[in-house]
Amino acid sequence: METKILLTHCKDEPGLISKITNICYKHQLNIVHNNEFVDNTSGHFFMRTELNGYFNDQTLIADLDQALPDGAKRQLVSSSRKRIVVLVTKEAHCLGDILMKAYDGTLNVDIAAVVGNYDTLKGLTEKFDIPYHHVSHQGLNREEHETEVMKVIEQYQADYLVLAKYMRVLTPSFVEKYHHKIINIHHSFLPAFIGAKPYQQAYERGVKIIGATAHFVTDDLDEGPIIKQDVIPVDHNFSALDMAQAGRDVEKNVLSKALNLVLNDHVFVYGNKTVLL
Amino acid sequence: METKILLTHCKDEPGLISKITNICYKHQLNIVHNNEFVDNTSGHFFMRTELNGYFNDQTLIADLDQALPDGAKRQLVSSSRKRIVVLVTKEAHCLGDILMKAYDGTLNVDIAAVVGNYDTLKGLTEKFDIPYHHVSHQGLNREEHETEVMKVIEQYQADYLVLAKYMRVLTPSFVEKYHHKIINIHHSFLPAFIGAKPYQQAYERGVKIIGATAHFVTDDLDEGPIIKQDVIPVDHNFSALDMAQAGRDVEKNVLSKALNLVLNDHVFVYGNKTVLL
Amino acid sequence: METKILLTHCKDEPGLISKITNICYKHQLNIVHNNEFVDNTSGHFFMRTELNGYFNDQTLIADLDQALPDGAKRQLVSSSRKRIVVLVTKEAHCLGDILMKAYDGTLNVDIAAVVGNYDTLKGLTEKFDIPYHHVSHQGLNREEHETEVMKVIEQYQADYLVLAKYMRVLTPSFVEKYHHKIINIHHSFLPAFIGAKPYQQAYERGVKIIGATAHFVTDDLDEGPIIKQDVIPVDHNFSALDMAQAGRDVEKNVLSKALNLVLNDHVFVYGNKTVLL
Amino acid sequence: METKILLTHCKDEPGLISKITNICYKHQLNIVHNNEFVDNTSGHFFMRTELNGYFNDQTLIADLDQALPDGAKRQLVSSSRKRIVVLVTKEAHCLGDILMKAYDGTLNVDIAAVVGNYDTLKGLTEKFDIPYHHVSHQGLNREEHETEVMKVIEQYQADYLVLAKYMRVLTPSFVEKYHHKIINIHHSFLPAFIGAKPYQQAYERGVKIIGATAHFVTDDLDEGPIIKQDVIPVDHNFSALDMAQAGRDVEKNVLSKALNLVLNDHVFVYGNKTVLL
Repeated sequence: METKILLTHCKDEPGLISKITNICYKHQLNIVHNNEFVDNTSGHFFMRTELNGYFNDQTLIADLDQALPDGAKRQLVSSSRKRIVVLVTKEAHCLGDILMKAYDGTLNVDIAAVVGNYDTLKGLTEKFDIPYHHVSHQGLNREEHETEVMKVIEQYQADYLVLAKYMRVLTPSFVEKYHHKIINIHHSFLPAFIGAKPYQQAYERGVKIIGATAHFVTDDLDEGPIIKQDVIPVDHNFSALDMAQAGRDVEKNVLSKALNLVLNDHVFVYGNKTVLL
Repeated sequence: METKILLTHCKDEPGLISKITNICYKHQLNIVHNNEFVDNTSGHFFMRTELNGYFNDQTLIADLDQALPDGAKRQLVSSSRKRIVVLVTKEAHCLGDILMKAYDGTLNVDIAAVVGNYDTLKGLTEKFDIPYHHVSHQGLNREEHETEVMKVIEQYQADYLVLAKYMRVLTPSFVEKYHHKIINIHHSFLPAFIGAKPYQQAYERGVKIIGATAHFVTDDLDEGPIIKQDVIPVDHNFSALDMAQAGRDVEKNVLSKALNLVLNDHVFVYGNKTVLL
Repeated sequence: METKILLTHCKDEPGLISKITNICYKHQLNIVHNNEFVDNTSGHFFMRTELNGYFNDQTLIADLDQALPDGAKRQLVSSSRKRIVVLVTKEAHCLGDILMKAYDGTLNVDIAAVVGNYDTLKGLTEKFDIPYHHVSHQGLNREEHETEVMKVIEQYQADYLVLAKYMRVLTPSFVEKYHHKIINIHHSFLPAFIGAKPYQQAYERGVKIIGATAHFVTDDLDEGPIIKQDVIPVDHNFSALDMAQAGRDVEKNVLSKALNLVLNDHVFVYGNKTVLL
Repeated sequence: METKILLTHCKDEPGLISKITNICYKHQLNIVHNNEFVDNTSGHFFMRTELNGYFNDQTLIADLDQALPDGAKRQLVSSSRKRIVVLVTKEAHCLGDILMKAYDGTLNVDIAAVVGNYDTLKGLTEKFDIPYHHVSHQGLNREEHETEVMKVIEQYQADYLVLAKYMRVLTPSFVEKYHHKIINIHHSFLPAFIGAKPYQQAYERGVKIIGATAHFVTDDLDEGPIIKQDVIPVDHNFSALDMAQAGRDVEKNVLSKALNLVLNDHVFVYGNKTVLL
């Protein structure tokens, strides 16, 4: 017996749930969880079906392809553990949280490697017996540096890249290469305070709440599909630095919740948004 | 074209989603929203299906009865506006919020009448052209008072009774008469601070968070199925009275969110719990 | 015995708390609550002192003026109930909440009048025996309309103007006339989604949290000093309209909390920020 | 120049703030932060004053003793880093968070040692070069085991003991020995679900919110002064195990926030409550 997840999305039409669940039933697969959503604005249908049983992937997919409307996307993913490569700069809290949660099993993930443009977090990473690659950006232009980073990443066959406070902007060609496979944590409640130094911006604006946003990276800086956001209250007592320190917990919690959703195949990307089922 | 909601719950078995959605499809009913849940502990299946189309209730129910396992409960409810009677004592905030939200359409409800054991809230109720019945408990024992209250309630054919800070304990016979039809707001985060004066209890315990709980009323005081809870932070600056004042917003918000769930048929009661679909 | 609030702010220097509290002690005034804050970035000192006793305002102020550094601002305000005029357009929830909280005493305020550019909320306002002035903007340019609105407002000698979902942008001359006396509720978590239709903007961006911001109105649209903010979670199920409906509770709660702070003299405006003591 | 914190609490009387701040001013100490609170129910005064300058501890304390009412408690504490010993059983998340935050400087603390009644967390602790003592309770009665634990603890001269999911009840004599020096994280929103298996209890009650409570340990199980609490929403989808997993983040966040308050001398214990200044 195996557990797999069927992800379907297509143009909405009557009878889709019935058709898909019929096929699962015919294949003697038990539906453990099922969630569906219709975006009425665009007329698009999404369904995540967690199935248990003995799978014949080929015939199952063939049956679905026959039943679903033209252009339907369907994917049968194994529930096995995904692999990530984490990119970092100097801040320890997000990386530390991921390392700890991978260690104690809270996150169902293999951290294949950590890549940093400084060596600050080498010691922390190696405590957990995970390879750390220091790829300095010193003396390299953006493209050259990314080429070096990619060489390292390529070895690891990762399912996702996680930017755990990686403080460099990626080039369009890098982003394109890992389309919807790069997850970033931005230290503001987007779309407030896009760009550099969001806590300084938040301090100067005098906001009473700060936040963090985990999103897929796209070409438009800080404009990719949002997966998870959360906030904490602040007040006049907080300097920009206090906000940055207070923000650490919310950053790491948001990133880890987003990873949990992505790693367990709960996330559909649709246009510039996510549907979480 | 009408919108109706099909509520199904029964022992879990393979193929239920497929069977139910097939029948809906066969009846040319469009599924607007569908949510299901299987309680793996008890092996029980719950499904809420919002349907749009031309209904033949009798044949639809007959088809379902044939397909579903023995003992299945299924109910087809109209999405029309429900009627409530509100019971109050002296505090205005919960009643005021319900009156205002019924007035501006935020709550899809008809307030048939308000019944109070004091006349404090008569003026407020009548501003909104809703009948207020003052049924004093003075000089009556609990059963006598409830008999009088019931006489008033009976006129109105209400779907639900809402205890909006009604500060009297109901007798088992009253509760039984309106089985799972009475919704109460308790001014604590249950099961903390059961019984009288929860804010005083919270103050004495020195908690850092207070809350409110909306639940169905059962024979066991403050032990009925919980529909909705929420909390707010407090600190050493709060006296018991300050907590009571600060708690008003959370009480009224929790009650109104619970009502919204109940009035739109999102709530299954199962054992001493609710399943919200 | 009276209760008054002493609000002091000035350039920081050693000994300020000692000097001010000495003067209060010398005047035999009891300090009920005291809160102070030093903004280390600007070197500015703020203190709110709630005093109880028999006041000789003139000598108290004179003593303070002698002790405090040049340019110090100090103000002794009575704790009596403030007067507001509320400006509205068509949406009922914020006005309704203020009316209800003034009625039941949750907000310590006199609502002198309500002014609307539509007559939609006249019925609701008059239920509470408060004068409603319908000042239509039809056929008038912005300045002409504001002149009419001001004529009405002027009669009431209000301490503050409250924009309870007043959907018109004010001219600089109007704003200047009521400098730091106009409180607005903006239906987004500022500075995200400045300007028109913030829920539509939020929907299009696919955010997972929406919010509301109460702020003083300045010349720069949605850029005034923020008093209070709060948020609620949303997800892919929410249309722009659903967000607007869900946002009602957070809007009214944020506005009413901000009013509570302002009406009880907890708010210092400093530059483009507030200090809440 | 040094930074120290003056903690004063005593019977309330007029002029206390003035007297204390005068003395600080006379000693040419600059007040960096000052917070005070009067508990009007008991007539008790609390003040935390963060001071910067050149200290003559003896004369400062002598001056205070002369000025303050009989029975006043005053304490001048250095702002230097405190030492803790952490007690654990098998769960990694709270210990892991403390280790990581001590490592990256988020918590201003020295972890002198970790003591566990199992050896499960030895590997994790030693990654951070901190001594781990496995003191098994196997074959020992409660007193014998505690004697062994105390032998280990005594070596380290800790300021506080932190129970990071230490799943054993302490004896009164142990608790008395470290009076108000033991901080525990309880995995429920106390006083709900006192005692064993709170998540199982929460599951059975069908609550919609779960939480965690950090408190000082006293003789009465789970009844000590509460320092910090927080909650997260749950629903019918959560089994007792799911709640336990979801609760990990809130447990570790609450414990680490409570530690931050305690380690920076923001916490007064008064009766069975805390005052956080």
